[in-house]
Amino acid sequence: MAYPEPIQKLIEQFSKFPTVGPRTAARFVFYLLKLPKSETEELLKSISQLKEEIKLCPFCFKPFRSDENLCEICSNPSRDKSIICVVEKETDLESIENIKKYRGRYFILGGNVSRLRQEDIKKLRTEELLERVKIPEIQEIIIATNSTAEGEATALYIERLLKPLNKKLSRLGRGLPVGSELEYADEETLSSALDNRK
Amino acid sequence: MAYPEPIQKLIEQFSKFPTVGPRTAARFVFYLLKLPKSETEELLKSISQLKEEIKLCPFCFKPFRSDENLCEICSNPSRDKSIICVVEKETDLESIENIKKYRGRYFILGGNVSRLRQEDIKKLRTEELLERVKIPEIQEIIIATNSTAEGEATALYIERLLKPLNKKLSRLGRGLPVGSELEYADEETLSSALDNRK
Repeated sequence: MAYPEPIQKLIEQFSKFPTVGPRTAARFVFYLLKLPKSETEELLKSISQLKEEIKLCPFCFKPFRSDENLCEICSNPSRDKSIICVVEKETDLESIENIKKYRGRYFILGGNVSRLRQEDIKKLRTEELLERVKIPEIQEIIIATNSTAEGEATALYIERLLKPLNKKLSRLGRGLPVGSELEYADEETLSSALDNRK
Repeated sequence: MAYPEPIQKLIEQFSKFPTVGPRTAARFVFYLLKLPKSETEELLKSISQLKEEIKLCPFCFKPFRSDENLCEICSNPSRDKSIICVVEKETDLESIENIKKYRGRYFILGGNVSRLRQEDIKKLRTEELLERVKIPEIQEIIIATNSTAEGEATALYIERLLKPLNKKLSRLGRGLPVGSELEYADEETLSSALDNRK
């Protein structure tokens, strides 16, 4: 297909968005073409505003908006500074915050790896993580990656990376989701539930 | 979840993009937050350029870039002005153009309907279609909607709408695999579908 250059260029840029391929990117462009001028300007303004007003916390990489140096979690004096919870992405942090149970700080890895190839690992913030974990006051690291193949591979990599530091490493428990029936649990879940019995 | 306002606002705007829900929209926002400033500026420039330089053809609604009044297809004197091919969206037009077999003009409906409710039908360019089809030189209308439930419903609606005009109405042949989208058809299939129109 041969679209005019401004369309083609924008398709290429949208194709770099997560989960977006060239076909979806093309649909985005045609959506924008149909969008009223005022709404397009709103969108442009929002993107500019995002980049101007939101910064990433230099400790945990959580996006935040304020004049403080650190995000509202890292700068909160009542947070436990001895424990750090490593998550894959921003929404995982929000999920854990929502249960209002964890009182330590976080570290957003910025993704996961499916294979332990150097080029994949480079996309994670592993150097920054090592730096944070070396801080003497940190005593425990919770690896809270997803319970998917990628999350498991990422957790294994991090465990290996942090082991030499001789600090307490823990993982989120695996087992039956609360409120679920045993009958519908897959074998892997049931097996972990049996292992983690207490 | 409670994100800062600039994030929340952009999530809402991205959620209106086709195929995008709030979770994917959030991933887009975090992708943009990580994007280098220069690339974000490139993206903003591309969107502005798209809206400035690309217009929709006033006859067929194909997006094009030129100082002409009509797109390169509608303004091409060697195109057959007696036949018009009605497609759901821009990519469908490109798919048909790619087989280099159809020599008439097009009309982009701007979508499809799953049910014949007035609010859904309003989203289609039916008034403009009726206006085009009434032009005396037009003798045949090919309804080239997708071979999906929505495409079929849309085709039925258009057939009913155009029938009183007493012009030749045809549909793409059943060469298209049932349940498939025109956009993904290979050229051979699409070519025989065009031949077998009835």
